[in-house]
Amino acid sequence: MISFAYGYPSTDAFPMDTLRTISAKMYDEYPPDTFLQYSPTEGYAPLRELIKKRLAQYSGIESDDDVMIVSGSTQGMDLAVKVLCNEGDVVLCEDQTFSGAVKAVQSYGVTALPVPMDLDQESMDLDALEHILQTTPNVKMIYVIPTFQNPLGTSMSLDKRKALYEIAQKYDVLIFEDDPYGELLYTGEPIAKIKSMDTDGRVIYSGSFSKVLAPSTRLGFVMASGELMRKLIVAKQVVDSHSNYYWQVLLAEFIENYDFQSHVEYLKKLYRGKAKAMIDALDKIPSTTLRYIRPTGGYFIGCHMADDIDPERFYDLLSARHVAVIPGDIMSVTGEGYEHDFRLNFTRPSLSEIAEGIAIIGEVLEESRIGADTDGAFDPENYKELSLASARLEPAATAIVQ
Amino acid sequence: MISFAYGYPSTDAFPMDTLRTISAKMYDEYPPDTFLQYSPTEGYAPLRELIKKRLAQYSGIESDDDVMIVSGSTQGMDLAVKVLCNEGDVVLCEDQTFSGAVKAVQSYGVTALPVPMDLDQESMDLDALEHILQTTPNVKMIYVIPTFQNPLGTSMSLDKRKALYEIAQKYDVLIFEDDPYGELLYTGEPIAKIKSMDTDGRVIYSGSFSKVLAPSTRLGFVMASGELMRKLIVAKQVVDSHSNYYWQVLLAEFIENYDFQSHVEYLKKLYRGKAKAMIDALDKIPSTTLRYIRPTGGYFIGCHMADDIDPERFYDLLSARHVAVIPGDIMSVTGEGYEHDFRLNFTRPSLSEIAEGIAIIGEVLEESRIGADTDGAFDPENYKELSLASARLEPAATAIVQ
Repeated sequence: MISFAYGYPSTDAFPMDTLRTISAKMYDEYPPDTFLQYSPTEGYAPLRELIKKRLAQYSGIESDDDVMIVSGSTQGMDLAVKVLCNEGDVVLCEDQTFSGAVKAVQSYGVTALPVPMDLDQESMDLDALEHILQTTPNVKMIYVIPTFQNPLGTSMSLDKRKALYEIAQKYDVLIFEDDPYGELLYTGEPIAKIKSMDTDGRVIYSGSFSKVLAPSTRLGFVMASGELMRKLIVAKQVVDSHSNYYWQVLLAEFIENYDFQSHVEYLKKLYRGKAKAMIDALDKIPSTTLRYIRPTGGYFIGCHMADDIDPERFYDLLSARHVAVIPGDIMSVTGEGYEHDFRLNFTRPSLSEIAEGIAIIGEVLEESRIGADTDGAFDPENYKELSLASARLEPAATAIVQ
Repeated sequence: MISFAYGYPSTDAFPMDTLRTISAKMYDEYPPDTFLQYSPTEGYAPLRELIKKRLAQYSGIESDDDVMIVSGSTQGMDLAVKVLCNEGDVVLCEDQTFSGAVKAVQSYGVTALPVPMDLDQESMDLDALEHILQTTPNVKMIYVIPTFQNPLGTSMSLDKRKALYEIAQKYDVLIFEDDPYGELLYTGEPIAKIKSMDTDGRVIYSGSFSKVLAPSTRLGFVMASGELMRKLIVAKQVVDSHSNYYWQVLLAEFIENYDFQSHVEYLKKLYRGKAKAMIDALDKIPSTTLRYIRPTGGYFIGCHMADDIDPERFYDLLSARHVAVIPGDIMSVTGEGYEHDFRLNFTRPSLSEIAEGIAIIGEVLEESRIGADTDGAFDPENYKELSLASARLEPAATAIVQ
């Protein structure tokens, strides 16, 4: 099985030696109460300060807003919906987006409404957004992944970000800027975060250490202004008191004393190579068969197959060839209408898996062309069970696509 | 400051050497993907099995029900309310109970209704419970801490547990059996858990490793039957994907290969001594001044001061003497009417702090008797600031009393 499905870090992404060293140091030098006891809901104060410093230094966010540690950026969105939205309210999302955020919205009886993407502009279609805001009551928040979008890999330009912020001001709605991949820039210059333009406390900025430290730690954070942050803290208290504190202390040590930034630079180099390998492989597929968005960072490449490809046949044949992708419907707000789209992850597979797997995708696309010869080697019917076990269905316990 | 306030483990409660050893072993021997990667929502399969084995071995719960790892038993209750209750529904609670559970209930627009305690029977008043069930629509769940109750330290007898389960059957409501202290028995024989009587999947059983491993890990679990568990898993997926996985793997190693049960026995010995010291000290206070419930395990002793004590004066004078307790109102469902009650924690303070602090409580009770001489050494007005900083107010970030 070659998997381009889940948004997992590479097996080579974990700084084992540093983690082992810091862990030993904590047991040797830290009093047990400082990392094994109950802790403040907001999180470990030195870590919160270090995150603010890093946001200023590497993400251009200089803000007096406070930072709270949460259990993955997933929890940040869950808490935001919990404290900001009532049943019947509306949250606007990019039409293809992180399915966990959509499910968080829906779990509170709140409607997630898709805003069409303008793919050429790598942005939400802002005219469409404004039209929706003019015609839809009770919109509370715009959920957006402006940088290295999931699943599309797009990044909004500075102008589009400014325009989005101004629209949010005009219609007085909040923006939830989800930025779990934000530091993983591989080419070009970084684009200012929407949070950096936030003059009136309208943007909840959400970050994660899942992609740059380790997903198992469930360490993420939200940055929000005064009263909003107080509400988020109260909500966090009620749902789980605080996030794992051992890892908060460990991460603060890492950032402060073990050159965390070098680790991030190592990851950028590792993933830059993988992204390039996948782009090179995709470039061998004719653009009349497959179009894709060339990412400048992050985890994903969004692909769109030509109209004359039969998507069902494509997914069946692909899983018969033991290659897994995430079909677009799964990553769409409405769950349908995006069967010609699929998401590729390039951080997890090896370079040789990337070359081999993308070549297979090219072959399978040709075999899936409507009217193509179906008497070839692969009859999907023979692979029904295999199909169920791979690309089309997700493991029961990981139904949310990271 | 001598604090009997929070339900914190002793500083001596943490098995530093074992944790250091297992952590090093994981970095040396486990592939990174097995403890640093994304993980199943339900938790680490070997840990879930080990918990089921331990429940059978030490808690008398032999069940086919499944176990899911959650972030502290706090999250277990939050998820249960989220999936089981609609706005306007009712959850019944002991009138004095864990305030975090009450806040979880209320955070979903669900009403937490108090059931009076029958303190002589160390149980909810089951007649009162039945009356409430007969007269109150939309009761979905009974939240109960039958073993080493928080804040009272009571334990329901086997007969009362059976009767409670039968009432739940009769009125077709669920029971949420919260048991974070359940293993910490110091005297007498263990009493069967309500979950062990659960023939029709009516009991959600919730456990925690906060009190027997380390609170900072946020490791707890829920046990529930088929469809109910599936709903809890979906809810957990949405709110935070999964709990910290590094610690799940570490705890499984601890249970399987490093004699976790010996550590629990060590804790029982440590806390048995502290409980005895507090009981001995309390016995020096006349029962006409203070009555208390002698616990057989757990973390807390529930106290009730005589009617002729002025509680406000008591709390003011006590904080002026640098002794902290949790006033009963904070631990009550309605937040009022329990000012004559307070909770003492005995696991956190040292033996000498227990002797000294309880002696001070005895003195302050006498000084707080209505009509007592107030021209003594302590004028609460002089200590307003101190008072605010200690017993009466909790740190902003730990407003939920563990």
